[in-house]
Amino acid sequence: MTFANIENGKRKAAVLVAGSWGTALAMVLSENGFEVTLWTRTEAQAAEVNGKHRNDKYLPDCPLPESMTATTSMEQALAGAEVVLFTAPSSAMRDVARQAAPFLSPNALVIHATKGFEAETLKRMITVLSEELGRPEDSLCVLSGPSHAEEVAKQQPTTVVVASADQNRAEQAQDSFINSYFRVYTNPDVVGVEVGGAIKNIIAIGAGMTDGLGFGDNAKAALLTRGLAEISRLGTAMGANPLTFAGLAGVGDLVVTCNSKHSRNWRAGHKLAQGIPLAEVLEQMGMVVEGVKTTKAARYLSQKYDVEMPIADQLYSVLFEGVEPTTAVNRLMGRGRTHESEQVARDWGLHQS
Amino acid sequence: MTFANIENGKRKAAVLVAGSWGTALAMVLSENGFEVTLWTRTEAQAAEVNGKHRNDKYLPDCPLPESMTATTSMEQALAGAEVVLFTAPSSAMRDVARQAAPFLSPNALVIHATKGFEAETLKRMITVLSEELGRPEDSLCVLSGPSHAEEVAKQQPTTVVVASADQNRAEQAQDSFINSYFRVYTNPDVVGVEVGGAIKNIIAIGAGMTDGLGFGDNAKAALLTRGLAEISRLGTAMGANPLTFAGLAGVGDLVVTCNSKHSRNWRAGHKLAQGIPLAEVLEQMGMVVEGVKTTKAARYLSQKYDVEMPIADQLYSVLFEGVEPTTAVNRLMGRGRTHESEQVARDWGLHQS
Repeated sequence: MTFANIENGKRKAAVLVAGSWGTALAMVLSENGFEVTLWTRTEAQAAEVNGKHRNDKYLPDCPLPESMTATTSMEQALAGAEVVLFTAPSSAMRDVARQAAPFLSPNALVIHATKGFEAETLKRMITVLSEELGRPEDSLCVLSGPSHAEEVAKQQPTTVVVASADQNRAEQAQDSFINSYFRVYTNPDVVGVEVGGAIKNIIAIGAGMTDGLGFGDNAKAALLTRGLAEISRLGTAMGANPLTFAGLAGVGDLVVTCNSKHSRNWRAGHKLAQGIPLAEVLEQMGMVVEGVKTTKAARYLSQKYDVEMPIADQLYSVLFEGVEPTTAVNRLMGRGRTHESEQVARDWGLHQS
Repeated sequence: MTFANIENGKRKAAVLVAGSWGTALAMVLSENGFEVTLWTRTEAQAAEVNGKHRNDKYLPDCPLPESMTATTSMEQALAGAEVVLFTAPSSAMRDVARQAAPFLSPNALVIHATKGFEAETLKRMITVLSEELGRPEDSLCVLSGPSHAEEVAKQQPTTVVVASADQNRAEQAQDSFINSYFRVYTNPDVVGVEVGGAIKNIIAIGAGMTDGLGFGDNAKAALLTRGLAEISRLGTAMGANPLTFAGLAGVGDLVVTCNSKHSRNWRAGHKLAQGIPLAEVLEQMGMVVEGVKTTKAARYLSQKYDVEMPIADQLYSVLFEGVEPTTAVNRLMGRGRTHESEQVARDWGLHQS
């Protein structure tokens, strides 16, 4: 499948919505020759993009290409768009997709780059999009991987994965995004890529918390290793290929999110470690912290699929049950909870006596 | 198998030699009730341990237990030692083992914690020990995992793996080292644990180099992901269980070594990125940088086992063939070398078109 209806040399793309990641990916599409329209919720944000070529709240100090425009009109954003990228927060994905559905061209390539589950239904984003757009899941793509938006905007080398059950679609998405600084792999494992991207945000909150409490690198490495086991455990129970978690959307994304102060989830965990209550942390952040909602989703998913998720459990107890971060992290470090350690060891074919 | 010959309530342990890691592990054994003797090469170092209870060159600002002693006499160090821990650099392991052999008690539990191969023979440390001590490989143990010596000395939570083909031996080693801040798992996969520990030092030099050149977190995450694939590829070709690389001795150790300024290998890579020649880097470090020798070993191992190791290859070209770090890292980032990326993708079951 190739792009057929190119007019005046410029293919059109739409990005919904203009958060940090949406804007950074819009810049990649623009760099690759697309005429990109951002869909924004507010006139003020659209005016900032159109007038000043900036999106300072979400991507500060970053000039946008002059050819990139923004609009609050979904119809206008989607008119003639061959590539449609959804980057709404998981909590808004259904609503944004519903608004987009009437204006989506039948041949449009639909990709999302959101890392989370729908809180109420525990559905993956591909499923939400499929339901709202009236398209089979197999025709949709997800883009994920170790990729801070700020670095992509600065054209620093970045490597991501596009997953789709439809290999042609995945390759079309790959062709749209790939360039010299943005390397794109394809992977047929949509479930693995979506689960890896979502659950790593929980582990990142935990990593921020251990760092904030003054635990060292050894402890964080143990947490990451056990976190990867936890991701893999849930993912394979949901039908993923475990090898996906050894790749960019698994260990790659986990590492970048847990080791960088760019990460909102890490920062949220770090603030929680200082004793700041969750509500205040979220207010201070001013942006969506996907890992918080994902922790709740993971709680239910671990019950639904009958898999143990000790890290998600401990974080749940801190976020929603008032348990002290120190208590939770000490439990995770295996002090007095050797049973969990044994569980993790067994999962990976190790043994603890 | 349990410790039988306990006299006056104190079991004896010997640690050869007293580098950073050996000293930190000696502190763990001492904390766990062992009477520990360090074997040192110089009288000056022994005197510092015995007189000042310090080992300042290797573990600065760290008071050692008063019960810990040091000697340059191998006979004295090994007299009555039930646990014998070898921590010599890979280049010195054979020599140290040869000196130790005549004095080793027949029932002594032998463990090593060295991450590298013997340069001349490409043999793993367990093989070197087996040859010099005249004991079957199956009776020996290796201790590895994400563990900066400095943090262990400060009793910060740390998790490691002990591998041995003999489960009783592994559990005996586990019993000797485990305590509230030092968690020990066992694993039957000696090859995997040794290869994981050795090869990650190469990736760590690469990580220090990308950081030193100003590449971002996204690029480093891609390097780590590809590094883990490279470790797994060589390890499985040598007979390891690939699951080991998803555990503490694989991804865990890789993460801690690539993200910490504690790591000598990372620091060496960082200095190389600044254009400092290898000889000068090694002189500045003043301690063994295992990854440098391991890069050479990996070059030959990749040929012997016919596996592609692009990261090791590029580092070899920088360390020993005068290639500029920028050139090597750009090649690794896939600019103009998409063939490598495809290879990695195939290894992990991904596809790149």
